[in-house]
Formats: sequence, structure tokens, C-alpha cells
Amino acid sequence: MTDIDIAQGVEMLPIVNIANQLGVDADNLEQYGKYKAKLPLSLIDETAVKKSKLILVSAISPTPAGEGKTTVSIGLSQALNRINKKTTAVLREPSLGPVFGIKGGATGGGYSQVLPMEDINLHFTGDFSAIEKANNLLAALIDNNLQSKTRSLGIDPRTVEWKRVMDMNDRALRNVVLGLGGTTSGVPRETGFDITAASEVMAILCLATSFSDLKKRLGNIFVGFTYSGDAIYARDLNAEGAMAALLKDAIKPNLAQTIEGTPAIIHGGPFANIAQGTNSILATKMGMSLSDYVVTEAGFGFDLGAEKFIDIKCQYGNLSPDSIVLVATVRALKYHGEMDVKTLTTPDVNALKRGIPNLEKHIENMLKFCKNPVVAINKFPTDSDEEVACILDACERMGVKASAVDIWAKGGQGGLELAQMVVDTCEKNIDKVEPLYDWSWSVEKKIKTVASTFYGASAVDYTAQAKKDLKKIEKLGLSHLPICIAKTQKSLSDNPKLLGRPKDFVVTVRSIEISAGAGFVVPITGSIMRMPGLPATPAAEKIDITDDGSISGLF
Amino acid sequence: MTDIDIAQGVEMLPIVNIANQLGVDADNLEQYGKYKAKLPLSLIDETAVKKSKLILVSAISPTPAGEGKTTVSIGLSQALNRINKKTTAVLREPSLGPVFGIKGGATGGGYSQVLPMEDINLHFTGDFSAIEKANNLLAALIDNNLQSKTRSLGIDPRTVEWKRVMDMNDRALRNVVLGLGGTTSGVPRETGFDITAASEVMAILCLATSFSDLKKRLGNIFVGFTYSGDAIYARDLNAEGAMAALLKDAIKPNLAQTIEGTPAIIHGGPFANIAQGTNSILATKMGMSLSDYVVTEAGFGFDLGAEKFIDIKCQYGNLSPDSIVLVATVRALKYHGEMDVKTLTTPDVNALKRGIPNLEKHIENMLKFCKNPVVAINKFPTDSDEEVACILDACERMGVKASAVDIWAKGGQGGLELAQMVVDTCEKNIDKVEPLYDWSWSVEKKIKTVASTFYGASAVDYTAQAKKDLKKIEKLGLSHLPICIAKTQKSLSDNPKLLGRPKDFVVTVRSIEISAGAGFVVPITGSIMRMPGLPATPAAEKIDITDDGSISGLF
Repeated sequence: MTDIDIAQGVEMLPIVNIANQLGVDADNLEQYGKYKAKLPLSLIDETAVKKSKLILVSAISPTPAGEGKTTVSIGLSQALNRINKKTTAVLREPSLGPVFGIKGGATGGGYSQVLPMEDINLHFTGDFSAIEKANNLLAALIDNNLQSKTRSLGIDPRTVEWKRVMDMNDRALRNVVLGLGGTTSGVPRETGFDITAASEVMAILCLATSFSDLKKRLGNIFVGFTYSGDAIYARDLNAEGAMAALLKDAIKPNLAQTIEGTPAIIHGGPFANIAQGTNSILATKMGMSLSDYVVTEAGFGFDLGAEKFIDIKCQYGNLSPDSIVLVATVRALKYHGEMDVKTLTTPDVNALKRGIPNLEKHIENMLKFCKNPVVAINKFPTDSDEEVACILDACERMGVKASAVDIWAKGGQGGLELAQMVVDTCEKNIDKVEPLYDWSWSVEKKIKTVASTFYGASAVDYTAQAKKDLKKIEKLGLSHLPICIAKTQKSLSDNPKLLGRPKDFVVTVRSIEISAGAGFVVPITGSIMRMPGLPATPAAEKIDITDDGSISGLF
Repeated sequence: MTDIDIAQGVEMLPIVNIANQLGVDADNLEQYGKYKAKLPLSLIDETAVKKSKLILVSAISPTPAGEGKTTVSIGLSQALNRINKKTTAVLREPSLGPVFGIKGGATGGGYSQVLPMEDINLHFTGDFSAIEKANNLLAALIDNNLQSKTRSLGIDPRTVEWKRVMDMNDRALRNVVLGLGGTTSGVPRETGFDITAASEVMAILCLATSFSDLKKRLGNIFVGFTYSGDAIYARDLNAEGAMAALLKDAIKPNLAQTIEGTPAIIHGGPFANIAQGTNSILATKMGMSLSDYVVTEAGFGFDLGAEKFIDIKCQYGNLSPDSIVLVATVRALKYHGEMDVKTLTTPDVNALKRGIPNLEKHIENMLKFCKNPVVAINKFPTDSDEEVACILDACERMGVKASAVDIWAKGGQGGLELAQMVVDTCEKNIDKVEPLYDWSWSVEKKIKTVASTFYGASAVDYTAQAKKDLKKIEKLGLSHLPICIAKTQKSLSDNPKLLGRPKDFVVTVRSIEISAGAGFVVPITGSIMRMPGLPATPAAEKIDITDDGSISGLF
């Protein structure tokens, strides 16, 4: 059975019933069809947020196939409800583009999925489209100002950093020249398109705490310089009001359900490399306002997603996780033990043991944030008992609780032990999680702290471009912003080929980008993909719809 | 009071109440918030469609400001309900792009508006975004095939006619070169972006009668040629299934309400120049399934919108209007009397009289379709009684019923006389409206028929390009398709400067485009704007949102 077969075999509950579980009346719900709804921001209750328990799920350095972080998050939320803990899963919205590429869908798997999976994978409630429009309105206003004779701000088109976005895997849009066709059709200049998840507007929406905060952040977007060297922000183009108006519904968290009828709030999906990689602050607070436990996830590995979750999102949102869960898989640890990616389904304890140091480093990192982390081993049918036992042993040696879960095949039932461990650690973890660094430090000191303590780097190097960027950041008065390091998720280092637990490596910062609206700077440590392409045989070719409107080919 | 002030001062009815008026249970409704909903296609009932009366509203050749066709359509639907005729307004969805330009909004005006106007103007239920994605998925699949080594169809990039679209006024995107940046980022080629309303996918959605018909039309989209001269269609890229899946909700008509609580079905918005310029067939049939009268409109003047309504939409949808209403205004007729556009608010009966031949030609055209047309004079506060009387006289001379309406200021109450006239003519017009031409005729004969009988042209001329295009259409076996002439709306001729009732003019066909999926060919008779630009001071700069999420600056 494929994921879509399992999903379509489930009788969903009306979304009003799911809302009722959370104590939300139908009157307070903005329904989008029978199985989706938007939750008004007025339901956020800071007193309830303080009492609710926040569970952060992240992962070891993943294989190219991913280790089931979303699936475990969903399964864990189902398991918590099974042991009578009122729990909501709070997750990111999937991007549409990759659905037509290789991926097919991004809504968990097996008996730990969020529903309606077809809708969530295709448009959902329109949030990505609204973000796309807000992003592209700013772009149109910039090019319109370049065209203007009467109201020109004197922007130098060669300095404009703001790109257009489209939620599509479309490599041909990465680098374009626009404004061709003569004087009535704009000023020719080089630019490009990113995928919508990579838009700074997405990062902003997910960090905003109100409409006024949203507008302020949108106004702070850095656009480029004038010919005389003055910085231009979105507010100089009077763009933030209309951009915020375009986001009037997108800012509201979406309610859906898991395959077992657990409430799922699914909202926002910023890129996990150049942005914070987690759902919106408002969604997290909404979940915490309406339930006793919230399970949420952070994109890519613990070194990337969880670090940003704590150092950026928690600081802007005044949040702190009460339990931290690390997802590990037998196949990923064998991959870190240098086993061929094509043979990962064959049992091999020795390869697994060679990969364990990757797990150990991530556990060490978890322990920097909280005393009682938990490891969840996401089991696959091809894992041997000996392999699973080997990971459990490694966790025991480090004094960390671990549980092997079978949530793909069994749903919440396959994660009951994990759920109990998480509840226990929530009681024990009474300290607020402290960030790795102080925002007031210099950008270099912040980067060095993360690279050395979290990645295990021996030093940080800066290219000439990165040094120039540091000066620009200082000139713009943005040195106090937190850092959102863009790094490969495949390795703890900045070199995707260094598996396991690399040592004695130098992290090279190639450039530093500015996300003044989102409120961070982005040190780039490798080649960053902002616009994916389609594969030779796109998943799109298999997607279809019948005469009664039912979808096939998503998986 | 501005339109948005009036709109926001109204207490809307819950959309379930509006649906109840139409006999639709809440269970059959897919709500999008409290005041919008999608109607499932299963509610369409062909027996009811046959019994329901269809009222088509079009206009004389408009001034640049428009003559209030939408406002009259909404007001008339309200008036019909006031005289106890169960009526639904069935309208187009406004495009988002122009909202940020000069226009501000496109949902009627005064006390004849559709609500919630902020939502309808901003994203609404996401239909335009879905159309945009379906359009751009095909574009990504084309460029991906150009990039492919293993599955290349051998498409010659110089022949690709399919463009990307974006619902934004963004002139800098009209002409672009994409695929730059080396071998991993596509094949460089020249192309451009149209506004989403100009997408053939929009035209297709509005002519489709079922999911299978939708898929067939999408598959028939003409893409370009291979190097060996073979035609490539979307189906050759296996694109139609995923494109249709993206449109799974967009195909369903949207329910909203007018300011007086009259049901309004608002669905689809194809360009009125290069496409058919009317709402979807499914929306029209939905309205006719659920009410006794449907008021609908056709874009631009009667020569463009109404001709396409009857010759394309009615033929594909097996529909026939029971009453045809022509909107005229004092200011437009003075404009046709060559009065300065800046002084149109000053009474001037002589200028008006000089403009009357424009009205007369449109009435003659109406009479070609139906024996009992009606003229609605949309009154403005600056019109003098003498001016209004002058138009009424002209109509009487031609034996056509006419009524001066005051629906902007008074809503349905200002159109009661018109409503009664329309009801009366619906009873009298028992003949099915016949199209102007037979689809089986040659493309030239079809063009000549419309140009001579409808525009009043003495001849039709073809450029060398147009002659080449005729050959291409024949080669592709598409000569049997209806024609959708792209012509200026400002004049009955193809020259926007010839006001009134031009005579002895030649229509020049410059090129003929192919919309094989939508199912028509497009003879182009002038310069056609497919991607508008923003003005020096965009409306976007005035649009804002308060902390509680209420919008200002739309009008």
C-alpha cells in the first residue's frame, strides 16, 4: 500500500470535530472545505502557551532519502493522544514545486500522515500563493520604480538583491534577464527566481507575532542601494501595507488532522538552509494555546534545524522546548559508516557501528540545550534486531533515553514507549533552554560559536566576498541580528562528503546574505540551491485526476 | 462614501444562508471562511438549466473608465429578486494584478457590489493561483524537456509559444531571456510572462464542462514544433493529468453574495481580448441549476464580449441567452461624440447626439441575435435629464425597450423598471439565439462575417504573417475552430481612434494565434496588451491592513 492508498482509505473527521477536540467552536473556525480550516489569531492565549509543553523533533545528519522526521512527529503526536495527553502536531506546509519533481508529497507516511494529503500537497489553503504574490508585488514595485521618471528613488539596478519567486521546480528561471523589449517594458537587468519557500516573505510570515510586527518586518526588507550608496528598504517603496494585505489570511494557522484524528496545525514552510526551517511562531503558539502538548519539527539535521529553532525562532517567539527528540535510523547510520547508499537495506552492524559517532555528536549537541533528550529510532522493515539494539546501546552508554518506534506501519500504537519517555522528560526539563550565543556579539563571534561548539569545526575562514559582506552588514547597522547559517545537511561539516563525525575541518564562509525583514543574516558555507529543477522523469507525468475529482500519483 | 466604505458597512449573511436561498444544504457546500464557498459540480442539473432564464449584459463601446457593466449586472440581479424572481448573478473573478495598479478593485460599485469585496479582490478562493500553477507547470515541463538528454522530444526552443504567467501588473516580465547560468540551469531562450487572466488555461477552465473535458483540452494545448517540424502538444509531455489535478478545486464555481444578499456565483476571468471574456460555462450552468434567472456579463463592448459569448461559449456550453441587455452611459456617448474625455461630466446634448450612432450600431448587432433586446442607461449624478431622455428617444426610434437605472446609488431599487422589462422580454424571446457563423466555414470566411456584419468593416486585410498563420492552422487541422477576434474595445473598428460608428474601414489581421486547448483561434487586429504595467503611483502604495486584519485602500 502506498501512502496515498492508505490516506484515501481513511474516513476523515469533519474539521469542526477536530476543532471541537481543541475547544474551538465552529463559529471561531474559518472552514476551507470540510477538512481544512483557518484558526483566527484571537485564539492565541499567552497564558495557555506558558503552561503547554513543547516537544521539538529533529534528526541526525540525514541520507538523501530523509529519515522520517515528519512521520515521527505525526506518529508521536498520535501516540501522546493514545496515552491521554491532549496533543497537537504543529508542522510545516509542504512546498508545491517538489511534488512534481521526485518527491511526490511531504505529509508524513504510512499510518502517520496528515490529511487531506492531496489538498495539503496541492495549494492547501493558498498560503504559499499569497506569499508568492507578496514577494512578487515588491519585485514589481522595484522594477516599476526603476522605470519611473517622476518618482525615481535612484535605485542602481545592479544592486537589487530582491528576486521573484515561484513555487515550482523550474531550473530555467534561476538566472534570467528581464525588462527587455524597449523603453515601455522596463529596465533590462539580470535577476532570477527562487522557489517560494526560499522567499524572505516566508521567513517573515513564520517569525511575525502580529499584523503590526508583520508589516514592520516586511518594511525592513533590504532591496539594494541607490546610485549614491544609500540603502533602500521595502518601506521606501511603500510596499509593506499591500504586502501585508495580501497575507491577511496566510498569516492564520491552518487546522487539519492526522490519520488517527489527532489535530494538526500546518502553517508556513521556510527553507531550512537559507531560512529558519520551521513552522510559524503563530502556529506553534496556537497549538500551545489549544492543547497540553505540541509536537513540532525542525528541518534538516539537528545541527541546522534545531540550532535555528532555538537561536532564532525561540528567541523571537519567547518559546523554549520542554523535550527534544532526535530521530535516528539504521540506514542513515550505516550511510555514515560509509556503506554504499544502494545497499543500505542489507543488515551490516559493522557499518552501523562506524556511523554511530554521527549520532554521538548530535546527542552531545542536544545535551548543550537540555539535560534529558530522547532518541527515537525510526524503524524500517529491513532493519535487523541487532542493528536496532546497537543504537539503543549507544544511547544507553551516553545516558540518553531511546525508543525504537514503528509508527509508519502502526501509527501512534508504534510509538507509545516514546510518548511516555517524552512525557517523563517534559516533567524533568524545568530549565529554560538557553541559546548558543548572545545576539549582541559580533557576527564573526556568533558564527565561530556555532561552528566550533555545534559542528565541531577547528576554525572559520572568510572569503574576500564574505569579508565585504561583513562590512556591509556593519554599515547597515545589522550586526546585532542572529545568524542563520546555510550549510549542507549531509555532513556536520560544510563538506557534504565528510560523513560520520568529521574532525579538524575548517568552515568556509563564502558570503553573508541579509534578511533584514526576517531579522537574521545568512552566512553561506556552500552552494545553496534556491530553485530546484525537475528530474528526467518528473512525478508530474504520473499525477492524474478522475472524473469525480479524485487524485492519483501523489505518494 | 467609497465603494469599500459601503461594502464594509454592510452586515453580510453567512454563506450557508445564501446557499439555503438556492436550496443548497450546508453539507453540499465547501466553505472558504464564513462568506465564501465552492459549489460541487454535482449540483449542476441540465434539466433545470433548460428551464432557467439566462440574461446577458454587455455594453456599448466603453470609455477608458468603463461603463459599469458589472455594476449593472449586480444591480439587475438585486432588482429581479426584489420583484420576486429567484435570481443569481454569475460573474467573472477579478484579476489581482490590476488591484495594485490603477484599478483598485473590480467587484461592482456603490450599492451594487459583490461581497466580501476585499477577499474577492485579493486571492478569493485561490482559483487564479491554481491556474497560474497549472500554466507554469507546463512551462517547467517544456524547459525540462529541452534540458533532457534521455527523454528529449526534440523541441526547437525557438518555436515554443507557451509562456509563463503571473497575476501581477509587471511590465518588466513581458520579455525575458531565461535558462542562463550554464549547462545545469536550462537552455537559454527568449520568452515572457503574461498576466494570469491571459493564460490559455484560464480560457480552458472556463469552457470545460467536466474533468475529462478539462483534461482533454489541457492535453490539446499547442506548445511548438520539433526541429523536424512536428507539432508538440501538452499531451506529448504527459502534462494534462497533473495540470488538471492542480485545478481540482479551481474548477468548482464560487458562491458569494451581493450587497443586498442576492446570491452571486463568481468564477473564472479569461481576458476579453485574446480569450472569451466571460465566466465559466460551469458557473453559468450552476447558477441556472439553482435559480430561475441568471444575470451574466460579457467583457468589453457588445462587438467583442457578446459576440464571443454567443459564438464560442454558448456553442461549447449548449446555452442561449433569453434576454440581452446593453449598458449605455451618457458620458460614453458624449465621448463617442468626440467630447474631451476630461469634460465628460458637463452636460452637452449635442455631443451626446453625435455619439448616438455608436449605440445604434450596437443595437443593430443585438437585433441580429434576438428580437427583444433591452438598453440599460447607467445613470451618473452628473447626467442631465435631457441627456438621459435623448438616449431613451433613440432607443424608442429603433423600437427597443430602454430603462434608466440608478443602481450605483440605490442598489436593486434603482433598477426595478429594467428588471420588469427583462422579465417581459425573456417571455417573448422564444427562439434559440443563432451564432453569426458556422464553425465549419473557413477561418477567413468566419473572420469576414464578424468583421462585416458586426463591426461594419468594408473588407478584411491579412499581413504576410497572418497568411502564414492561416497555413499553419490548416496544417495543424484546426480550421474548424471558432474565432476569438482580438480587437480594441474602444472602437467598433480595429483603430481605437475611430469613435462613434466608423464606416468604410478595413480590418487588418496581423497574426492569428492558436488556442487549441481552449478550442479557438485568435485573429489579432491590433497591439494586444497581455501583461499590464503599474502606474507611476501604484494603488498598492495606499493599500493597508490594520492590526485586526481589516483592509483599506481598495476601491
